[in-house]
Amino acid sequence: MITVRALLFDTIGTLLDWRGGLISQLQAWGAAHEIAADWPGLVDAWRLDFIMSIAKVRTGEREWANQDQLQRESMARLAPQFGLPGLHADALEELVGMWHELPPWPDAVAGVDKLRSRYIVAPLSNGHVAMLIELAKAAGFTWDAAMGADIFRHYKPDPETYLGSAALLGCEPPEVMLVASHPSDLDAAAQCGLRTCYVSRPLEYGPGRVVEATPAAGHFDLMVEDLLELARAMGC
Amino acid sequence: MITVRALLFDTIGTLLDWRGGLISQLQAWGAAHEIAADWPGLVDAWRLDFIMSIAKVRTGEREWANQDQLQRESMARLAPQFGLPGLHADALEELVGMWHELPPWPDAVAGVDKLRSRYIVAPLSNGHVAMLIELAKAAGFTWDAAMGADIFRHYKPDPETYLGSAALLGCEPPEVMLVASHPSDLDAAAQCGLRTCYVSRPLEYGPGRVVEATPAAGHFDLMVEDLLELARAMGC
Repeated sequence: MITVRALLFDTIGTLLDWRGGLISQLQAWGAAHEIAADWPGLVDAWRLDFIMSIAKVRTGEREWANQDQLQRESMARLAPQFGLPGLHADALEELVGMWHELPPWPDAVAGVDKLRSRYIVAPLSNGHVAMLIELAKAAGFTWDAAMGADIFRHYKPDPETYLGSAALLGCEPPEVMLVASHPSDLDAAAQCGLRTCYVSRPLEYGPGRVVEATPAAGHFDLMVEDLLELARAMGC
Repeated sequence: MITVRALLFDTIGTLLDWRGGLISQLQAWGAAHEIAADWPGLVDAWRLDFIMSIAKVRTGEREWANQDQLQRESMARLAPQFGLPGLHADALEELVGMWHELPPWPDAVAGVDKLRSRYIVAPLSNGHVAMLIELAKAAGFTWDAAMGADIFRHYKPDPETYLGSAALLGCEPPEVMLVASHPSDLDAAAQCGLRTCYVSRPLEYGPGRVVEATPAAGHFDLMVEDLLELARAMGC
């Protein structure tokens, strides 16, 4: 029986309500600048475009760039389609910066705090270290380390991210559990030998919208409704 | 005027009393195993041997190895000279593990906590990330990130450590201040464009023993007696 010593957390989606947070910030920004647009549609398109950008980095089709750079390029592409032509540089930075201040799901901070009493806890995110620090300060997370994609110059689900994090934590892969609401992320971690915990986040993509199907019972080591349930399951 | 956004802290010596902590742990270990030895002498020799090992990694004379590996090799070399022949593997691990649990200087935890209210704070150490996490948990530090030498596969004072840390924190070098009790470390950081703060730790090498001379007034951006003075100087 190998004991889990460290928990890694997917951040955008698993801990933070990126969609709700961005829509709120964009609505406020639009009101302040007297701009109306389909903000939920823009947020969904932005997220999708970013995920396609990551795929290009992963395949080597484009060179390494961090999440800020990719989000900036995505927004520059999308803005004209959503009635925001000619965003000047300051406005673009303001929009990209919205990804650095996202609201946590209600259980997330308390759950991580409880788990930190017995385990090493760290985000493992496709965000970069500086972004993870800002997100943690804004939401109130306390971490033992911050595993940003820029440490590895690889994006999840590349194995370098899971294995590199385990190595930096001084753990063998089975001593580390990835906690995520995205089955694809967890499957890649499991292939690297990590333990896996699926967290249900039914509102991540908006009410009633499913992007990845809920995994079958038993597909991951743990399946929980929120991080407080995980803390109880892990003896915290 | 460039504003400092992040503070990096040398850890072994600047935040932690490695010498006092190791002597105490070795004395207790010796008492438990009915072994008498010149523990202060062994600690001083161990530290020196480790520093010489780091130099060999820095010049490329030997390949990368983390602090645990180097400390293990050093102790294996020194043990016979100090009357500890034939240390078995478990005992060697126990001694190396003593570097993962060192007492903080009295002002260190409170000082870092105060500084964290306004700045990004992270250790920048020749220890590895896993070691920094254990040291932080044992001593009670809360960090925003942990900059271990294994992230860069370079030891201080290689520029990769200072510039690599600034990049991961999303800062330009002058936005980052290194806080250290070792002038040689600070001089190297300054050459990379970082700000510098010298902290006096007169007891680091034992009472009355000076390894690096106190720098002249004005040589570094700040010179303080402890981290509470630094917090006040930085507006915390």
